[in-house]
Amino acid sequence: MGLDRASGIRIGRGTPGEKNLITDVPGVRVGHATIRDGAGVNTGVTAVLPHGGNLFRDKVMAACAVLNGFGKTMGLVQVEEMGTIETPILMTNTLSIGTAATALIEYMLRQNPDIGLETGTVNPLVCECNDGRLNDIRGLHVRAEHVVEALDAAAPMFEEGAVGAGTGMCCLGLKGGIGSASRVVTLDARTYTVGALVLSNFGEAGRLLINGRHVGEEIQAGQSAQGDRGSIIMLLATDIPLSERQLRRLCRRAGVGLARTGSYYGNGSGDIAIAFTTANRVPHYSESAFVPVTMMDDEHIDPVLDMSAEAVEEAIVSSLYHAQTTVGRDGTVQRGLREYLGQSAQSSL
Amino acid sequence: MGLDRASGIRIGRGTPGEKNLITDVPGVRVGHATIRDGAGVNTGVTAVLPHGGNLFRDKVMAACAVLNGFGKTMGLVQVEEMGTIETPILMTNTLSIGTAATALIEYMLRQNPDIGLETGTVNPLVCECNDGRLNDIRGLHVRAEHVVEALDAAAPMFEEGAVGAGTGMCCLGLKGGIGSASRVVTLDARTYTVGALVLSNFGEAGRLLINGRHVGEEIQAGQSAQGDRGSIIMLLATDIPLSERQLRRLCRRAGVGLARTGSYYGNGSGDIAIAFTTANRVPHYSESAFVPVTMMDDEHIDPVLDMSAEAVEEAIVSSLYHAQTTVGRDGTVQRGLREYLGQSAQSSL
Amino acid sequence: MGLDRASGIRIGRGTPGEKNLITDVPGVRVGHATIRDGAGVNTGVTAVLPHGGNLFRDKVMAACAVLNGFGKTMGLVQVEEMGTIETPILMTNTLSIGTAATALIEYMLRQNPDIGLETGTVNPLVCECNDGRLNDIRGLHVRAEHVVEALDAAAPMFEEGAVGAGTGMCCLGLKGGIGSASRVVTLDARTYTVGALVLSNFGEAGRLLINGRHVGEEIQAGQSAQGDRGSIIMLLATDIPLSERQLRRLCRRAGVGLARTGSYYGNGSGDIAIAFTTANRVPHYSESAFVPVTMMDDEHIDPVLDMSAEAVEEAIVSSLYHAQTTVGRDGTVQRGLREYLGQSAQSSL
Amino acid sequence: MGLDRASGIRIGRGTPGEKNLITDVPGVRVGHATIRDGAGVNTGVTAVLPHGGNLFRDKVMAACAVLNGFGKTMGLVQVEEMGTIETPILMTNTLSIGTAATALIEYMLRQNPDIGLETGTVNPLVCECNDGRLNDIRGLHVRAEHVVEALDAAAPMFEEGAVGAGTGMCCLGLKGGIGSASRVVTLDARTYTVGALVLSNFGEAGRLLINGRHVGEEIQAGQSAQGDRGSIIMLLATDIPLSERQLRRLCRRAGVGLARTGSYYGNGSGDIAIAFTTANRVPHYSESAFVPVTMMDDEHIDPVLDMSAEAVEEAIVSSLYHAQTTVGRDGTVQRGLREYLGQSAQSSL
Repeated sequence: MGLDRASGIRIGRGTPGEKNLITDVPGVRVGHATIRDGAGVNTGVTAVLPHGGNLFRDKVMAACAVLNGFGKTMGLVQVEEMGTIETPILMTNTLSIGTAATALIEYMLRQNPDIGLETGTVNPLVCECNDGRLNDIRGLHVRAEHVVEALDAAAPMFEEGAVGAGTGMCCLGLKGGIGSASRVVTLDARTYTVGALVLSNFGEAGRLLINGRHVGEEIQAGQSAQGDRGSIIMLLATDIPLSERQLRRLCRRAGVGLARTGSYYGNGSGDIAIAFTTANRVPHYSESAFVPVTMMDDEHIDPVLDMSAEAVEEAIVSSLYHAQTTVGRDGTVQRGLREYLGQSAQSSL
Repeated sequence: MGLDRASGIRIGRGTPGEKNLITDVPGVRVGHATIRDGAGVNTGVTAVLPHGGNLFRDKVMAACAVLNGFGKTMGLVQVEEMGTIETPILMTNTLSIGTAATALIEYMLRQNPDIGLETGTVNPLVCECNDGRLNDIRGLHVRAEHVVEALDAAAPMFEEGAVGAGTGMCCLGLKGGIGSASRVVTLDARTYTVGALVLSNFGEAGRLLINGRHVGEEIQAGQSAQGDRGSIIMLLATDIPLSERQLRRLCRRAGVGLARTGSYYGNGSGDIAIAFTTANRVPHYSESAFVPVTMMDDEHIDPVLDMSAEAVEEAIVSSLYHAQTTVGRDGTVQRGLREYLGQSAQSSL
Repeated sequence: MGLDRASGIRIGRGTPGEKNLITDVPGVRVGHATIRDGAGVNTGVTAVLPHGGNLFRDKVMAACAVLNGFGKTMGLVQVEEMGTIETPILMTNTLSIGTAATALIEYMLRQNPDIGLETGTVNPLVCECNDGRLNDIRGLHVRAEHVVEALDAAAPMFEEGAVGAGTGMCCLGLKGGIGSASRVVTLDARTYTVGALVLSNFGEAGRLLINGRHVGEEIQAGQSAQGDRGSIIMLLATDIPLSERQLRRLCRRAGVGLARTGSYYGNGSGDIAIAFTTANRVPHYSESAFVPVTMMDDEHIDPVLDMSAEAVEEAIVSSLYHAQTTVGRDGTVQRGLREYLGQSAQSSL
Repeated sequence: MGLDRASGIRIGRGTPGEKNLITDVPGVRVGHATIRDGAGVNTGVTAVLPHGGNLFRDKVMAACAVLNGFGKTMGLVQVEEMGTIETPILMTNTLSIGTAATALIEYMLRQNPDIGLETGTVNPLVCECNDGRLNDIRGLHVRAEHVVEALDAAAPMFEEGAVGAGTGMCCLGLKGGIGSASRVVTLDARTYTVGALVLSNFGEAGRLLINGRHVGEEIQAGQSAQGDRGSIIMLLATDIPLSERQLRRLCRRAGVGLARTGSYYGNGSGDIAIAFTTANRVPHYSESAFVPVTMMDDEHIDPVLDMSAEAVEEAIVSSLYHAQTTVGRDGTVQRGLREYLGQSAQSSL
């Protein structure tokens, strides 16, 4: 449910959408498969579906930006060249991307009997962070059925925090994971939505900023920093008609939101942003050589850039707020943010 | 007039437009100012105007690609970010880009009293190659009036070879300069045009390929190569509706045409491609937040990519074909290609 | 002198160098030419010299990053391809880049009689922001002698605020301009310096963050925002041996510092970062085909990334702190930050 | 074995290394696993090992370039950011990249017990082309043991043509697959090698150029073109010390070689180049913060750029020359180039 009033936290100046989730963008759905055995296995899969139809036949316009490329995300080369996403977007742990890719390919082949026969192949989009601190990542515990489970679970409502791909993630010395937020933007007297979803796994202990406040310093004074390790995947979805070039501009603003939460884009962090719009569709089969699209006049785009940054900033904080303390492999404990926030602390944020 | 039948040279398999020039794209005009004093001064300015209206108020959609960045072209940063060209495109010698930029800014200020007052600034697009082999480039002989002269001279018909910015350029051990070509493409039963204009100044003696034939080896057997120095500016214009992303794809195909004429993108060569379409216009002032545009379905784009490469390949050969032997500073002589081509040689090309 | 204790402002956690200026990096010098007529002319030139020798013959290793490309900076194409800077770095107003470029070319020609004769040309690096709000930018008041003045004035000590290229700049609804800061970093038991210098001209009123605190909201509550217009040039200098790839990584961290001061990289902002190291030099003339260089092991680079972001963040705040209230064309008044900061306010920052 | 004198084909002007293979670069090894059932299964895996040691602990400096991004190659994001390759490079069919990635991850985990425990994860580099015309690609016939087989088979001598990942590939209307070539370059009186290996699967029938000659037109006059589909992976290896920036320059020259064989970088082609040098190694664990490296002076780099383009051009022709006529799924026959080349034809090439 994003960050609600009860959290006592307010980020920025914009207005959240109804659920304060990426799924406030009509048609977008999110599903999780959480893999947790009570011992050293803490991992999973999260799936984001840009719309409910056949994504291969009805692609969404998209772009990406690599803020720091210490990451293994698959599929970005084609997103950048063709400006489209043609599969659900998967997130999982770093060493399971191959398994997730194969499962996603099989899912696409089942849906599309033409792939590899009458038409070309398909570009699976699989994102990752390294959950090896809490999870037995060498065990490769993600299996094809978990991918299917996450895809089947996709819905407008979904959990945040230590679920799905976020189950074993750590962020800024706290328990990280899945977070989401949304903002409404009014353009030409019509209301649109920008939604963000992150898989947070970056940053040093003591660095957390919440709306500018140095919360990390306050609550983690005694902790030793471990370097800005890990990564973050930042998805932006919108129903505003934008061109590929403009969607890439949104992706770069994800880096603004990220910087404001305490990251300096550490060396070992795969900081990757992907944005898509449901308002410009590209058909796989087109009789006509031309596709009409709508883009924004860039002179009007500032509120969209602003709210993209803000939605990512809040999605990161929301991932921390919702993530519960987790005991990982070898008994490592990663505490959730709420353990540190007493009511008084919360009320002043 | 591009390469005509009389030249005996045929490049590729496509069909040229009426003039076989970039100006076959409706509205595009080209003008030159040639600066030549019979001694060491051999330089000039060439201006390409994407359309006849106010370019600042009615920008054309555009993109660019840097194939090898040993070059000083100004204005590309904003072309890439905003996807538009808002001034005429100038070409001149490397050390005169500052002068050309100021003259172009003054031209834009005269046309647009709002620039710098009610609205922001303007992005001058100035391309260059180093004509220092034939021209006293240290003398900075280009002046503001030459820029105005080239702009005022812009017309649908224009000369190729050792004129305008091409006056002092050398290419593949021969006299280079301005060259142009065009190709027609039929899409959805309508005819469109892809036009190319180059300022050729690259390559080693002995390397020239004409439609695959090793003409350079044949005609320059005894000459010493001087390294692949110099540069090339490659403009692509079209009336096909394309997105910024697709225009960048065209720019990369300029590199295909370039490679086929004997370049290996030498270290010291600024190999730069810029493409625009007259079919997607972006207004400087827009009341609406949205702009409708048309792009191609990429599944239909292959003929456009193919003809872009071919038009650039032919424009380069045309620049050599039209460039007359020129005596430069210190008496350096750079021979034109036609001196080497006897009638028999031509007929077999 | 950067931000000193008397300012009451403390940014981040690092240790400044001796002067808390970019010139704490040994050899780096900065000079200004301020052009101000008491009426509508408020502009100038700032020059940054990476070292005191012949930059063309002894280039510094460098890289750049375009965070948002609504800018006209010249010279970046070659910096990216060749990984070197071979001239002083100039900053001036947007419409004067041509004039500045020509003056810089003439300066380089005087220093290097081989340019354009025995060797190729030179790549002038000229950065800009639009000072049209306070300055009669259409008047093109920068002349060649101002460039020479700034170059000749280059020294280890220099002023910040409304001087040089910063004379007419505005930032976050306040008077902007030139700001600088430095941080020391210890690597393998030796001390190095990362220095930043910015030309600040970006942002909306009410958005200023100082070390996380929403100072803009506090002091500009009643002011109308004007969109995130303008731009920022961010230079990073260091004596740490880094490769071109690593210097580009530093450039991207300039965006972290920028985001933390209240920017969301607005549409109309040319947000451009350039980094160089004085520790890796590239000779223009080399008999050997090889050049030994030293780079960092990326596993050790986090403190350098962290301090690069922090130095840029502080340099921006320093530019605001030092800029005095300025009356511009048509009597427009842009207030300096210190007018808003009472002693009590400062002490709590 | 590359192209030998017996082939009658000579590409360019350079001198091949001893084997005329990528493995002429000391330490580089190549292995295949060919999967062929006589019916519809024609696929496989090819592995390229940059050196014989532990690649994760002793990475090779590397870079990449995406000439046309309609491709699914994994691992490029990190190659670009970190400038290193830390695993063997795998090639396989498009829909098997997930399987290959998992097998490669398992191989790296076996070799490196620290991955995912004491240190971070690993970046598997897996390239692909679509062999669906001849292969039952939907059947996902590549299994982990094939990856191990290819890795174990890696040796200085290896087959070209329809083997390994090349088993089912088609190129320019002919049977494509694996091809290789090498060129020697003398720098500072010492001999170095540039080697290329390609997986060729691109282009239209009738387009083949061999050293400029329009062989495709001659031998495929009656065939219908099918568009420039498919892709090409182009690896460059060298023992010349180069920086990441310089290796990226080599990658772009792969596009020169590609263009000269008849490609125009078609829409549906993933045209991807990767280059590494064995002369600059980056340790995974380094006590020192610094790494000494050697790079070239760019003024001396032209022969390396030239030979990189030429090696790729020849590797493509070699892939066609060695590939034998193959019967694929549904009885589709793809003819090898040698079927078309009579002795007389060959002698004149």
